[in-house]
Amino acid sequence: MPVIEAIPNISEGRRTEVVDAIAAAVAAVPGVRLLDRSSDASHNRTVLTLAGEGEALHAAALVLYDKAIAAIDLRSHAGEHPRLGAVDVLPFVPLEGATMADCVALARAVAADVAARHAVPVYLYEEAAAEPTRRNLEDIRRGEFEGLASKMASPGWTPDFGPASPHKTAGATVIGARMPLIAYNINLATDRLDVARRVAAAVRHSSGGLRYVKAMGVMLEDRRVAQVSMNLTNYEKTPMPRVFEFVKREAARYGVGVLESEIVGLVPQAALLAAAEYFLQIEGFKSDLVLENRLRSRP
Amino acid sequence: MPVIEAIPNISEGRRTEVVDAIAAAVAAVPGVRLLDRSSDASHNRTVLTLAGEGEALHAAALVLYDKAIAAIDLRSHAGEHPRLGAVDVLPFVPLEGATMADCVALARAVAADVAARHAVPVYLYEEAAAEPTRRNLEDIRRGEFEGLASKMASPGWTPDFGPASPHKTAGATVIGARMPLIAYNINLATDRLDVARRVAAAVRHSSGGLRYVKAMGVMLEDRRVAQVSMNLTNYEKTPMPRVFEFVKREAARYGVGVLESEIVGLVPQAALLAAAEYFLQIEGFKSDLVLENRLRSRP
Repeated sequence: MPVIEAIPNISEGRRTEVVDAIAAAVAAVPGVRLLDRSSDASHNRTVLTLAGEGEALHAAALVLYDKAIAAIDLRSHAGEHPRLGAVDVLPFVPLEGATMADCVALARAVAADVAARHAVPVYLYEEAAAEPTRRNLEDIRRGEFEGLASKMASPGWTPDFGPASPHKTAGATVIGARMPLIAYNINLATDRLDVARRVAAAVRHSSGGLRYVKAMGVMLEDRRVAQVSMNLTNYEKTPMPRVFEFVKREAARYGVGVLESEIVGLVPQAALLAAAEYFLQIEGFKSDLVLENRLRSRP
Repeated sequence: MPVIEAIPNISEGRRTEVVDAIAAAVAAVPGVRLLDRSSDASHNRTVLTLAGEGEALHAAALVLYDKAIAAIDLRSHAGEHPRLGAVDVLPFVPLEGATMADCVALARAVAADVAARHAVPVYLYEEAAAEPTRRNLEDIRRGEFEGLASKMASPGWTPDFGPASPHKTAGATVIGARMPLIAYNINLATDRLDVARRVAAAVRHSSGGLRYVKAMGVMLEDRRVAQVSMNLTNYEKTPMPRVFEFVKREAARYGVGVLESEIVGLVPQAALLAAAEYFLQIEGFKSDLVLENRLRSRP
């Protein structure tokens, strides 16, 4: 049975009772697993990770919008993270046995239902985008909730579903389909933030680096460690081991080594198996060489 | 539910109909999966890989001995691989949720049943061994079927179960419990067999190398590639990435690089995840960072 992941980002990271109620409601939908839950008070934002089959996730998404729109008023929301809606963004991601086409179809079906049920404008993004200008989440979200009414009135920003103006309290929402995203940080053996920033600039796509890497240099103040903080948006085409070697090589230009790396949240098995395959130079590698995978395949 | 693997090695690799019948009989036991099957005509030997819970594997093991002892006569068996019985060796290996203690208990229970049912002498080996001198399979098997009667008559070789002399056609059998074994080969970018042999001597335990590595240098004649052919007998204590780096470093002493490596048969997920963790220097790695593992854990 094809498994899909849904990662709703909701604009509430401070009122624990509100987040608890939303998380409990989606987790109670039959066939849905709540794999992870992470709230950030300074961002005032919560990220839930759900998994299940398409139909179960569709039901869970509707429950999520019901609860979040009832509880969250963007007019009084403040936080560091950019946002334009109560449910800010909801990506669907293909896992075992599911295809990107499954996720695109699910995103569109949920988008239509949410728009009809709550009169909330919905933009489709990434692989579910109807036009290339809407693939990138940052482009859709630019201007945020506060700039939404004027943005929606400007040419080219009619939503894919729902009314042509913002919902008074819930703003708009962005629904789509994408590859699994890996939050991957590499800590450098230095306290020089400038080195982390130069390495980040070298590795990220936007300034000339690898196609599916977003990166910035940050300082872990408590440890005095400079970090290259990254999002890998397609680990199949830009694999983790290549990113690691790239960062290591660039840091070496400044006489700096790699202290360690860290994965934030969850990572698909295939991304780590690809690292083993890369470094061990395994010829003819297939995921069903893995005993546990063979055990789980159909007899 | 704890899953155990059983890897019976039977002394028949030429008569396909005999091997087919044995494989079909064990695969038909409810709760047992036949994961892999590999026969070698020059070794005249077949290795089956089964998985299931302890009770199901116990039943499958008895079926296997019934069929193999009825069909195989060691008096007329010839092949390159050393052997002392119709079912030469049967190790049990802990997989998901199972412990080594589970496998030791299973090995002893099967050994008692096989000895009683067929009047075949049984030696326990590796983690199931009753005494340290019987841990090593090679020590038990030395002298093979042809030398078995005199070996069993000599001091210290009374079997753990069954009669004190060989079964006329089935010889003896060795049953035990061990860690998963990884058959791992590293191909060198050279046709110099002497380099592969020197590297193998450096890396293997028996001549001063790493504790859980068996190794030999061989020549892949068709490709003119020298290979370090290894068995890793405890990937937790002597991990694959360390073995790879060791071999790479030793080969470099002769100006030789690593062409590629290969895994023969199946490999536990944890062994490959450990390679990703090692090379990517992942801090605080745990297997439940892997999305699929989280998905399969109990809610």
